[in-house]
Amino acid sequence: MGAVLPDRVSIREVGPRDGLQNEDPVPTADKVRLIDALSATGVGRVEAVSYVHPKAIPQMADADEVWRTVARNPRVRYSALVPNLRGAQRALAGGFTEVEVVVSASDTHNRRNINRATEESLDEIAQLVPALHEGGSTAEVIIATSFGCPYEGDVDPKRVAAIVDRVVADGADRVAFGDTTGMGTPRRVRELLSIVRERHPDVPMLLHFHNTRGTGLANILTALEFGITEYDASVGGLGGCPYAPGASGNVATEEVVHMLHDMGIDTGIDLDKLIEAARLAEQIVGRELPSGVLRAGPRSRTVS
Amino acid sequence: MGAVLPDRVSIREVGPRDGLQNEDPVPTADKVRLIDALSATGVGRVEAVSYVHPKAIPQMADADEVWRTVARNPRVRYSALVPNLRGAQRALAGGFTEVEVVVSASDTHNRRNINRATEESLDEIAQLVPALHEGGSTAEVIIATSFGCPYEGDVDPKRVAAIVDRVVADGADRVAFGDTTGMGTPRRVRELLSIVRERHPDVPMLLHFHNTRGTGLANILTALEFGITEYDASVGGLGGCPYAPGASGNVATEEVVHMLHDMGIDTGIDLDKLIEAARLAEQIVGRELPSGVLRAGPRSRTVS
Repeated sequence: MGAVLPDRVSIREVGPRDGLQNEDPVPTADKVRLIDALSATGVGRVEAVSYVHPKAIPQMADADEVWRTVARNPRVRYSALVPNLRGAQRALAGGFTEVEVVVSASDTHNRRNINRATEESLDEIAQLVPALHEGGSTAEVIIATSFGCPYEGDVDPKRVAAIVDRVVADGADRVAFGDTTGMGTPRRVRELLSIVRERHPDVPMLLHFHNTRGTGLANILTALEFGITEYDASVGGLGGCPYAPGASGNVATEEVVHMLHDMGIDTGIDLDKLIEAARLAEQIVGRELPSGVLRAGPRSRTVS
Repeated sequence: MGAVLPDRVSIREVGPRDGLQNEDPVPTADKVRLIDALSATGVGRVEAVSYVHPKAIPQMADADEVWRTVARNPRVRYSALVPNLRGAQRALAGGFTEVEVVVSASDTHNRRNINRATEESLDEIAQLVPALHEGGSTAEVIIATSFGCPYEGDVDPKRVAAIVDRVVADGADRVAFGDTTGMGTPRRVRELLSIVRERHPDVPMLLHFHNTRGTGLANILTALEFGITEYDASVGGLGGCPYAPGASGNVATEEVVHMLHDMGIDTGIDLDKLIEAARLAEQIVGRELPSGVLRAGPRSRTVS
């Protein structure tokens, strides 16, 4: 019973970007400390910064300085998120060789976020991808609201699949499915992956879940059955949801790693070091983070 | 891909017992209000009280009064937890027709909890089951630490299976597997159910998960594949873990119901009424409860 699962999974740590972007702004030095601590955990990838307009997202205003100061670990692949060509140029100037761009599957969400239709964003991405390639970077397209939109509700998986078709045709190296506000459920994951994996079995795909409604690990468990081996997660569960004050953010990296390791799936991450990094993240934001494994410790930690 | 899942699941709401037992004591009237609110949600079963010694668990000292005062809803099956024959007699005197007794699969946990070996508890349960039957009640045996012990660590599924063999032979009507401190993971659920379902395909089995390390819904998803249709859950995620201060308690009923309904699995529960009951539970204990669906609302709740 159950599909054959992958024996290795690649985690991208997004706490420094998606996490801190949804917290009150923190000092540059703290961001650098956090990125460096995460880079020492054995994690393979870190989303370090986003090059967005400081008026739109003041939390990321110091992206250049953060990236200049980080002790770049040669074993870690770092990436940056960019909203447009201007951001892409900054990322390339900084030397990033992995860059992500975002488009929302939901037209309403895309308009509210960046004041244009999904179709217009796709046209821009079609220009951005070759520019990134020419600049020496890969181009990942993140499809936000892939599992539901806070304005529109359900998002038709066929619409998401059509966006995949388009960005793959336009040269994207990887497609990420963003569960932007935690509307993903095992059913929605299954429905979407059934379609897109059949149409694009060889395109690298990454899943980005928020644990807003408790389904984060159940969603990952479902995606593992489809052979997906790339996941975003945020140290300590850093971050939140702009549409639901007080709600959880990204699925906590410790919880993901803890479950995967227990299943015999390697991540390369030292869970103890990761928990230390999560404690640092708590100090930096000055509040308790929602990660259960941070609170209770791994299941292997017995009491005497 | 994936097994055929059940189309209906029976939830037992354990917030009034397992939840409140791990909170600071609350007034009798509040317990009654909570039970009555839960009974109006459409939930099929409520674990109402436990008949334990008030010195051991002062939170349940008013069990008789609570049960006398509750407006018993004829559509709800109520149950009581008892530790021994004395408790069973109180439950029978109160008119309960569904009673649960507990034994720990881990010998150390059983000794720390009730100062005797697992084997001795099983001998006592062999006496208790016929006494409950004679008194007009069913007898459910809850096997605590089925997925791990906070003292011993891993618990061999074969040991749990041997306990199932024993209590089924002794007449138990149902076996519940308690993930007492949230050490359950999809792997452990799969390992245990593979064994016990094969040996006892016709014995009603119930799963009781704590969300201590974030795996609650992933565990239920795994158990659904084995055809398990009975689950405990606690309104709002009421409760906690005595071994990990600040950690989450039982899996939150709203999160379970939300995921199941999205999968097309009926529970009979009105999620909006359940969320109202969770708000009442928050008022009663005077703190924010960890349920994500309580915080963020169901995924169908769009913003305007």
